[in-house]
Amino acid sequence: MNFSNRVHNMDFSPIRKLVPLSKAAEDRGIKVYHLNIGQPDVKTPDTFFQGITNYNEKIVKYSDSQGIDTLIDSFIRSLSDSNIYFEKDEIMITHGGSEAIQFAIMATCDPGDEILSPEPFYSNYNSFAKVSGAKIVPFETKIEDNFHLPKKEEIIAKITDKTKCIMLSNPCNPTGTVYSYEEMRMLGEIAKEYNLFIISDEVYRQFIFDNVPYTSSIHLTDILDRVILVDSISKHYSACGARIGLVASKNKDLMHQILKLCQARLCVSTIEQYAAANLINTMGSYITDVKMAYKKRRDIMYSGLSSIPGVICSKPEGAFYILAKLPVDDSDAFAKWLLTDFSYNNETVMFAPASGFYATLGLGKSEARFSYCTSIEDIENSIVILKKALEEYNK
Amino acid sequence: MNFSNRVHNMDFSPIRKLVPLSKAAEDRGIKVYHLNIGQPDVKTPDTFFQGITNYNEKIVKYSDSQGIDTLIDSFIRSLSDSNIYFEKDEIMITHGGSEAIQFAIMATCDPGDEILSPEPFYSNYNSFAKVSGAKIVPFETKIEDNFHLPKKEEIIAKITDKTKCIMLSNPCNPTGTVYSYEEMRMLGEIAKEYNLFIISDEVYRQFIFDNVPYTSSIHLTDILDRVILVDSISKHYSACGARIGLVASKNKDLMHQILKLCQARLCVSTIEQYAAANLINTMGSYITDVKMAYKKRRDIMYSGLSSIPGVICSKPEGAFYILAKLPVDDSDAFAKWLLTDFSYNNETVMFAPASGFYATLGLGKSEARFSYCTSIEDIENSIVILKKALEEYNK
Ligand SMILES: Cc1ncc(COP(=O)(O)O)c(C=O)c1O
Ligand SMILES: Cc1ncc(COP(=O)(O)O)c(C=O)c1O
Repeated sequence: MNFSNRVHNMDFSPIRKLVPLSKAAEDRGIKVYHLNIGQPDVKTPDTFFQGITNYNEKIVKYSDSQGIDTLIDSFIRSLSDSNIYFEKDEIMITHGGSEAIQFAIMATCDPGDEILSPEPFYSNYNSFAKVSGAKIVPFETKIEDNFHLPKKEEIIAKITDKTKCIMLSNPCNPTGTVYSYEEMRMLGEIAKEYNLFIISDEVYRQFIFDNVPYTSSIHLTDILDRVILVDSISKHYSACGARIGLVASKNKDLMHQILKLCQARLCVSTIEQYAAANLINTMGSYITDVKMAYKKRRDIMYSGLSSIPGVICSKPEGAFYILAKLPVDDSDAFAKWLLTDFSYNNETVMFAPASGFYATLGLGKSEARFSYCTSIEDIENSIVILKKALEEYNK
Repeated sequence: MNFSNRVHNMDFSPIRKLVPLSKAAEDRGIKVYHLNIGQPDVKTPDTFFQGITNYNEKIVKYSDSQGIDTLIDSFIRSLSDSNIYFEKDEIMITHGGSEAIQFAIMATCDPGDEILSPEPFYSNYNSFAKVSGAKIVPFETKIEDNFHLPKKEEIIAKITDKTKCIMLSNPCNPTGTVYSYEEMRMLGEIAKEYNLFIISDEVYRQFIFDNVPYTSSIHLTDILDRVILVDSISKHYSACGARIGLVASKNKDLMHQILKLCQARLCVSTIEQYAAANLINTMGSYITDVKMAYKKRRDIMYSGLSSIPGVICSKPEGAFYILAKLPVDDSDAFAKWLLTDFSYNNETVMFAPASGFYATLGLGKSEARFSYCTSIEDIENSIVILKKALEEYNK
């Protein structure tokens, strides 16, 4: 029995692949600090649950394929707070940012086409590209540069006649980098000169620290017909399990094509859409408070990791991840060892080995992604454990 | 700006494409009977809403990519009532039957590959195939045969070295046909002889009338590693907007590959999964009652349509659709005319022109699909209107 090459070529999630080892450790009675996943520990706002309770239809019907009006309206209003302006027919509601990315790729790429992406990148970009028969062509960003973009020539050198778009997350998962106005302008120029789309994944848009200025791709006003925005309530409102996101573009023709993809899968969960609308409409200071909490955790994580001998860190400007270079040859092996061979006071740490975020084989071998969407206490304990572990591992 | 050929080649939903005309009619004060869509008017069981209220986590977290345990267990139990037996790692929860179909195609077909399907078929099969770069190769079923399958030779004649699977809905949307044991055995033989998968879409599985015996593809015990089952709570429990379905196969290697597709999109809406589990666990006589109601409506719809001069009907054995041949050359034009030029006592009828359910150009031109998941009164009124309309249209 032959399966498709498509699925054969896909990988299992690098973030989830160590789960069996961590389960086994937990079965041995060891406490595991899960710094490997991007699942916030922050409470989902009550207004989400109220939105669910308020739903009083007797039949849970299909909703419109593009999403319910009230939710689209809520997104339009909340995006306008970041000076991002959309009209109704320029937004489609999706099952999380995940489906939005998938639709953006499907609408712009055919099998064999190429997508430029700064690496390291969100590992599922690879999966979504492969689902569509497209290929991620990476250009490297380096820890010495705090993972900011390389020179224009280096990016252009990767462009072929198969290149259809540039895809990036900003703020970046896994690096926490926020691209500057100049970097975004450069990408805009490249898109214009080489006739490319920009798939701009901004699901961490509202988590930017220290007043670092933010440039959305949607602020590149001279290439608006080339920009496809991806957003989601998962991270901003700690509502990952709701599966509510959006894909948006000022290019109405493109959105008209994406509507076909929306119609094929009929609609997004109806009740979740109502709940999300209620949530977004009543946010008050929630995001600001959460951002302050993440900033505090970022500071503790950054100074903690930096204090460990041999660890090199890039200080994240946004999101809730930090990419660190560890004094090990192979962070995959070290991550496994932490779960199978090590514990300190019966506790250990789980992180995501960075190789899964690189497309280029061999890159990121010594690097590790830690997420800090967990409690300060957990972060502090994890740092102590990691320090001990590296001492022992390198003995 | 070039979009992908993929989206260019896709069609807009034939079921939804007349919506602007029906909205315009409604704006003119005309009441439109919507027999075009498969949105049941039956109430969603209270236990679904109770399941939602019972959810008392403080954070709406990502769930496991394959679905939550309790929901998988509920499906396993409820499928066993139809003598369909699955183990836990043979089922993945999906965003409706829609995502299940998409995953089944993606896991079996690469671009250029072919999927055999009896036509007329559920129109989104075309969309899902095109999303994956695959192609539906139809074999015709005819109204004279109540849309039962043609001879084995006719089906085999369509097989090429690109053919990867047979896909069908059973009971069939749009025809209501339930395939006999002999027909299913024949498909099983073909699958075995030509090394094909069977994608068996059984989302109307529990709506079969008059004690017509039911053969699930999963009952073809000698080809179980070739069968991929698609199921959903949308129609059975009138919970279309919940977006809860499943893809299942006894072929564990295949399911292991499909897990990659599940992991890429992270998970299905968490709260809806809990609600669906509660729903399935507490069904009692709900399905039986709903089935009786649909049977009654089927009888009224069938005898009503048959009583109109020139209309030829195939009597549906399951689901809640009827495919009828109308005394018109072009049911697309007639459907438009009903919405733009006709009304009777200020009322008119909307149906789905059948051409959208055929892949072969020119087939189904005189046919129309009517759904009867609406009230008896609406069905009776629609029949009166349709009769008048055909008289006037053919004058
Ligand atoms: C950069 C990035 N984009 C998109 C997503 C998808 O999130 P969701 O589908 O929950 O919106 C994630 C999730 O971790 C992410 O990190
Ligand atoms: C034959 C068939 N399969 C699958 C579906 C998809 O339904 P859902 O995604 O709501 O489960 C439908 C919906 O109309 C259908 O008629």
